[in-house]
Amino acid sequence: MLLLLGGGVVATAILAKSKGLGGGWLLINFGWGLAVFAGVTVSYSSGAHLNPAVSIGLLTTGAISFVQFLVYVAAQMIGAIIGAVLVWLTFKQHLDAETDPGAKLGVFSTGPAIRNYGWNLVTEIIATFVLVFVVIGFGRAGDPELGSPAGLAALGAVPVALLVVGIGASLGGPTGYAINPARDLGPRIAHAFLPIKGKGSSDWAYAWVPVVGPLIGGVLAGLLSGALLPLPA
Amino acid sequence: MLLLLGGGVVATAILAKSKGLGGGWLLINFGWGLAVFAGVTVSYSSGAHLNPAVSIGLLTTGAISFVQFLVYVAAQMIGAIIGAVLVWLTFKQHLDAETDPGAKLGVFSTGPAIRNYGWNLVTEIIATFVLVFVVIGFGRAGDPELGSPAGLAALGAVPVALLVVGIGASLGGPTGYAINPARDLGPRIAHAFLPIKGKGSSDWAYAWVPVVGPLIGGVLAGLLSGALLPLPA
Amino acid sequence: MLLLLGGGVVATAILAKSKGLGGGWLLINFGWGLAVFAGVTVSYSSGAHLNPAVSIGLLTTGAISFVQFLVYVAAQMIGAIIGAVLVWLTFKQHLDAETDPGAKLGVFSTGPAIRNYGWNLVTEIIATFVLVFVVIGFGRAGDPELGSPAGLAALGAVPVALLVVGIGASLGGPTGYAINPARDLGPRIAHAFLPIKGKGSSDWAYAWVPVVGPLIGGVLAGLLSGALLPLPA
Amino acid sequence: MLLLLGGGVVATAILAKSKGLGGGWLLINFGWGLAVFAGVTVSYSSGAHLNPAVSIGLLTTGAISFVQFLVYVAAQMIGAIIGAVLVWLTFKQHLDAETDPGAKLGVFSTGPAIRNYGWNLVTEIIATFVLVFVVIGFGRAGDPELGSPAGLAALGAVPVALLVVGIGASLGGPTGYAINPARDLGPRIAHAFLPIKGKGSSDWAYAWVPVVGPLIGGVLAGLLSGALLPLPA
Repeated sequence: MLLLLGGGVVATAILAKSKGLGGGWLLINFGWGLAVFAGVTVSYSSGAHLNPAVSIGLLTTGAISFVQFLVYVAAQMIGAIIGAVLVWLTFKQHLDAETDPGAKLGVFSTGPAIRNYGWNLVTEIIATFVLVFVVIGFGRAGDPELGSPAGLAALGAVPVALLVVGIGASLGGPTGYAINPARDLGPRIAHAFLPIKGKGSSDWAYAWVPVVGPLIGGVLAGLLSGALLPLPA
Repeated sequence: MLLLLGGGVVATAILAKSKGLGGGWLLINFGWGLAVFAGVTVSYSSGAHLNPAVSIGLLTTGAISFVQFLVYVAAQMIGAIIGAVLVWLTFKQHLDAETDPGAKLGVFSTGPAIRNYGWNLVTEIIATFVLVFVVIGFGRAGDPELGSPAGLAALGAVPVALLVVGIGASLGGPTGYAINPARDLGPRIAHAFLPIKGKGSSDWAYAWVPVVGPLIGGVLAGLLSGALLPLPA
Repeated sequence: MLLLLGGGVVATAILAKSKGLGGGWLLINFGWGLAVFAGVTVSYSSGAHLNPAVSIGLLTTGAISFVQFLVYVAAQMIGAIIGAVLVWLTFKQHLDAETDPGAKLGVFSTGPAIRNYGWNLVTEIIATFVLVFVVIGFGRAGDPELGSPAGLAALGAVPVALLVVGIGASLGGPTGYAINPARDLGPRIAHAFLPIKGKGSSDWAYAWVPVVGPLIGGVLAGLLSGALLPLPA
Repeated sequence: MLLLLGGGVVATAILAKSKGLGGGWLLINFGWGLAVFAGVTVSYSSGAHLNPAVSIGLLTTGAISFVQFLVYVAAQMIGAIIGAVLVWLTFKQHLDAETDPGAKLGVFSTGPAIRNYGWNLVTEIIATFVLVFVVIGFGRAGDPELGSPAGLAALGAVPVALLVVGIGASLGGPTGYAINPARDLGPRIAHAFLPIKGKGSSDWAYAWVPVVGPLIGGVLAGLLSGALLPLPA
């Protein structure tokens, strides 16, 4: 769900002949934020684990076990690949009509505005740290099971959606904000195996950055949350 | 209500001399999302059935009967036609001043960015599936009567409005996201019978796509929700 | 509060040298919606009457008395004039730097995209009808004192803010959506008496439209709400 | 947190080669609003004091002591400087690639669209007055401890985020809306000491305006709230 809507908004905003062509950065930010909203809503009963970086942060704090972490990550990768295939079906004709292979890849995976693996990694670490730290913060003022304070629990998936809009708007400029290893690696795999007309490289040289950066950011957020955020009463 | 505001935002964004001309895709997404918000709010007491695709999804899950389904669809079509007439009155002068017949039709009904009935159908099926599946998901974690989990119930019509903004932003590029047979067919009928100055074809050749696609998507969402979403306790 | 923020967003979006110049229609829609949000919040204890069209709708339904209506309208006009004066102070240099007298007036009051008093009136009637009808709808499903159903009450001023964003996005194109007689007439009076450098006409010939249209729309909404919306239990 | 996201959105919108370049005013407004959202969320347990102007308003109303005020302001300044350093790291390559020293400073601190210290001060006083007055208003209709009425408390940090979006959209045009002395002075100090490639002046001549204006606005809001807003029961 997450990847279908998330990849979809990029496709709507950048692919040739799309009605939303040129829709702008805020359109993409809202599309991703609301993709998270829909994804969290339909996965509520299984704990709404959509992001290995959040899962590793919760593993760091001890909220989930290592086996749970592995199960979540496997499911996240499978879901991300399925979502990417559905994006391909939804935008089949626009992917065919687009002539820029980079735009085609951009529907699936992120890439750096200025390629420098070190600094790109720094950006992903900081952006993911913000995501995971605030998500853990949602869970520290109230019900520890739902991971949300009294007020935020009533809002369901809205706060995390707003947070993702905000991170995209604010910190997405340099790397396109993967902030989620599955969100980037899953669709990149789909890009590699799908018969997309006129596709170019899947840019595997960059692929480790949006995997390693978010995982480091998630671990740092998990570690620092113990020191900086109050524990649930 | 839905169609008045929904058609209105397209008119505001594309018709000649409108103050919102060139307002962009996100403007249209928010206009439709908030049209749904207003429509659901005023129809709360009758169950907020505004969309035959959602109704057929609920029919599939057994939440409503076939007679209820027919009554809802008839009301949805009548409401959509009345809404389209009010859009015509609100934007009378701008419809007169607009010289492109395609823009005039675009205020009323959707059309494909790249015409290919098969792929256009796929896009509408997937986009409507997302809508109906998540709407059913809203109803599975809490109060089955209001169709909303504890948290989402407190938000009233806000979650579905956000969802529609998200679907439009993400999946609306190829077909303009009808995702609702009444939303498309009702205004198309109004376009056909209203004395709109300089209007062109009502594009009846395409009219079946935004009817059949959403109905298939709604049925699929109803069927899969039984397998993938938890039942209310 | 309402007029300060509402007028301010237009000034931000259109005045010479403003940092938000060219911010677009959705910026204006959000500015007005959030102006209503702030205005309702600070006036909650006095019933949040900010709009004579809503007040006349409530007078029609019998929710307030004629004397209350007059007191509210007087306060609304005084507040609107004070707000317009504060906009003038906030944007003093930008109003000086702007060379188009029409843009200067646009910061204060609305005007038609295509001048035709009859059709402009129709647009204002329909747009205000939507506002007042849905606002009354908010009040019919729950607590009659706060004017909000159980869910919407918890959201405070958020639903009406979203509604105003939606009406602006959808129905604002032809007349700039006064949908509130005080919002238009108060600042027009301020425009007439303030020593704005290089100001032009206050366009008194149009001034009756955004007063009479919203009042008619409000009365129609009050009358039809009795027939179409359920009464509070 | 506030400054990282707030400075980040400006960087995303204006720095050379950013993916969000040209994202527009509403993007910046949402970025700042959601920065406040994230900042308030993670600082809930310490009272969510992020802004010396709000703190001085609460000092004026007697809600906090002078010693508390000093502690809060020191923490706010330290946090703002840390946030600015993280923005520098996140956007390191884009700050290097940008050739306009004014754009570099704009990522850190505000500046006037039309330089006139008197009128710039008036704008900051009015905009901050709106912020602090409405924030105090949030706290007057309900639970005095959480600083929010019953409904708004359930929304957590959402209302103040919406308010900041609205103030930016409406009143931000002339000065870029510091409305927070720490938000402006902290990053200006960081701009002065960080080794930013090709940076220009830190514009210390203007630095007093976004400090003094917000403090005056906060005091005025604190004083007037006693007269104009109802006390908590």
